[in-house]
Amino acid sequence: MPRNAQWRLVARPEGLFKPDDFRWVEEDVPAPDEGAVLVRTEYLSLDPTNRGWAAGDTYLPAVPLESVMRGFGVGRVVESRDPRFAPGDAVSGLLGWQRYAALDGRALAKLPDVGLPLEAHLGLLGHIGLTAWVGLLEVGRPKAGETLVVSAAAGAVGSLVGQIGRILGLRVVGVAGSDEKCRWLTETLGFDAAVNYRKTIVRAGLRRACPDGIDVYFDNVGGATLEAVLALVNLHARIVVCGLISQYTAKGPVPGPNLGPLLVQRARMEGFIVLDHLDKAAAATADLVRWHREGRLKYRLDVVEGLENAPLAVNRLFEGGNTGKLVVRVSAG
Amino acid sequence: MPRNAQWRLVARPEGLFKPDDFRWVEEDVPAPDEGAVLVRTEYLSLDPTNRGWAAGDTYLPAVPLESVMRGFGVGRVVESRDPRFAPGDAVSGLLGWQRYAALDGRALAKLPDVGLPLEAHLGLLGHIGLTAWVGLLEVGRPKAGETLVVSAAAGAVGSLVGQIGRILGLRVVGVAGSDEKCRWLTETLGFDAAVNYRKTIVRAGLRRACPDGIDVYFDNVGGATLEAVLALVNLHARIVVCGLISQYTAKGPVPGPNLGPLLVQRARMEGFIVLDHLDKAAAATADLVRWHREGRLKYRLDVVEGLENAPLAVNRLFEGGNTGKLVVRVSAG
Repeated sequence: MPRNAQWRLVARPEGLFKPDDFRWVEEDVPAPDEGAVLVRTEYLSLDPTNRGWAAGDTYLPAVPLESVMRGFGVGRVVESRDPRFAPGDAVSGLLGWQRYAALDGRALAKLPDVGLPLEAHLGLLGHIGLTAWVGLLEVGRPKAGETLVVSAAAGAVGSLVGQIGRILGLRVVGVAGSDEKCRWLTETLGFDAAVNYRKTIVRAGLRRACPDGIDVYFDNVGGATLEAVLALVNLHARIVVCGLISQYTAKGPVPGPNLGPLLVQRARMEGFIVLDHLDKAAAATADLVRWHREGRLKYRLDVVEGLENAPLAVNRLFEGGNTGKLVVRVSAG
Repeated sequence: MPRNAQWRLVARPEGLFKPDDFRWVEEDVPAPDEGAVLVRTEYLSLDPTNRGWAAGDTYLPAVPLESVMRGFGVGRVVESRDPRFAPGDAVSGLLGWQRYAALDGRALAKLPDVGLPLEAHLGLLGHIGLTAWVGLLEVGRPKAGETLVVSAAAGAVGSLVGQIGRILGLRVVGVAGSDEKCRWLTETLGFDAAVNYRKTIVRAGLRRACPDGIDVYFDNVGGATLEAVLALVNLHARIVVCGLISQYTAKGPVPGPNLGPLLVQRARMEGFIVLDHLDKAAAATADLVRWHREGRLKYRLDVVEGLENAPLAVNRLFEGGNTGKLVVRVSAG
């Protein structure tokens, strides 16, 4: 049997991740205990929240130093001592940054067969799809005809959110970091407009792109983009705080935007974490799969080859270096 | 008949109001047109939002320069050319900073006789009581046993909010600017604790006073107090943005707090303006009057004598100079 390999977290990141924050360890593939399942990871998901997990306690306890870096992934069961799983089953869970994971069966989800490749459970379904679906529908509560702005719009969640907004009959404007990303949004995904924040004063760009103001803002970034949006929000606007990636690598707490517009426009700003909404996964999956089959909801993977490259690849999330869902291909399917 | 007197706004305030921002004008008492009502103002309400009205467009258009300063007040009908009103009726409305107002009858509300003096419609009922009731109940959605923090707790709205919180079975902690105010909150109004922000690091004081964290924050001030609260909010906390008085006299837009806790704690922050909720006035009045009769809800007026003193008295709101509802007695009842 091949050996296991893993990245262990050995230092808390300051700013971006550095190679020295991790140590590469090779060891025997673990044998699963009673009730546990051995999984071979196929794709590892790289997400902005990974840095928070490594840096300290957030909505989950910090990853302990010297242990395998926490990460969500999809893979197939190799050996099972839990009667609910059999070899070959497709599963997802916090497999960690490693080739093989032996986990309690209760920590794994068996993936439904929706006629899509395994990695669709990272790019379209799973935590990414559920984040987009819950955040926009349940927190943002959009109404047809309203204007939706999405930041990090060419990212995994943002690109789905914008397309779902179009499906629901909203005017959708994306904010992204390159002309190429902006073209992808408008020409391939059907966004009504896109603003390149590296080349445009965001507030001016949004003012042009949102002639009727902004009703829903799906925020993945915080910072200057949030401030620009607040200047343009309509009465009773909803700001969905999904992420604040602009501040994740900052040294200390970053000030937020002036909150005057929240009061004057009676707007709502609300944070959410997908883990609170796992009960809605079936409803979300049904919508997402249907929309995808109808050709109205596309997803794109940005694939990094090889677990060895995970520590540096994850930084691309904070530098705008990915288009679509950033994943690591750990083993061939 | 006596002459009318009024304060007209002649300059947009920068920082605090200055005497030169207003001009005192005396003129004949106006005769009401068909459909209009002549009202003699008894009490004028001074509110933090007055500065916003004078400075520029907010949720209402800016007060035009050279016109009577906008202000809410209570008074009695002197002469009526609207069949719904008769001389002697108690009314409220945007009477303005003047002794007599001739207004369209549709701009006036006839005050219900609740067995309380006219000025109770500024201190307990009216826009102040409705703000406290709507903001806490409808926006804050508190549950018995939760912890509520109120800023500007010795002010008109804050002092009602805290007492309503107690009535609903919450642990209530007030933040105020003097030991005397804090004593009034805990000894007279029944707050569980109070923090003097001029003598205590607010975050440390709140940490001591809120051992189970903060579930609902009724914010009248913004700024450093909001930041201190955010560091202590519980899961799914609600922050009711009623006012941001700490920034109303600032020169430019003031940064807000770091929004990380909103995400990590899946918290909601929501602004509201009482004018959107006038349909709930009857329900609020019923509760407020009942609680007051039962001895569980007290109100206090901070009375400035004479319309002449309005321009400087209004600044007390921004300097923590009032306890309870700040009003100007314009004429004897």
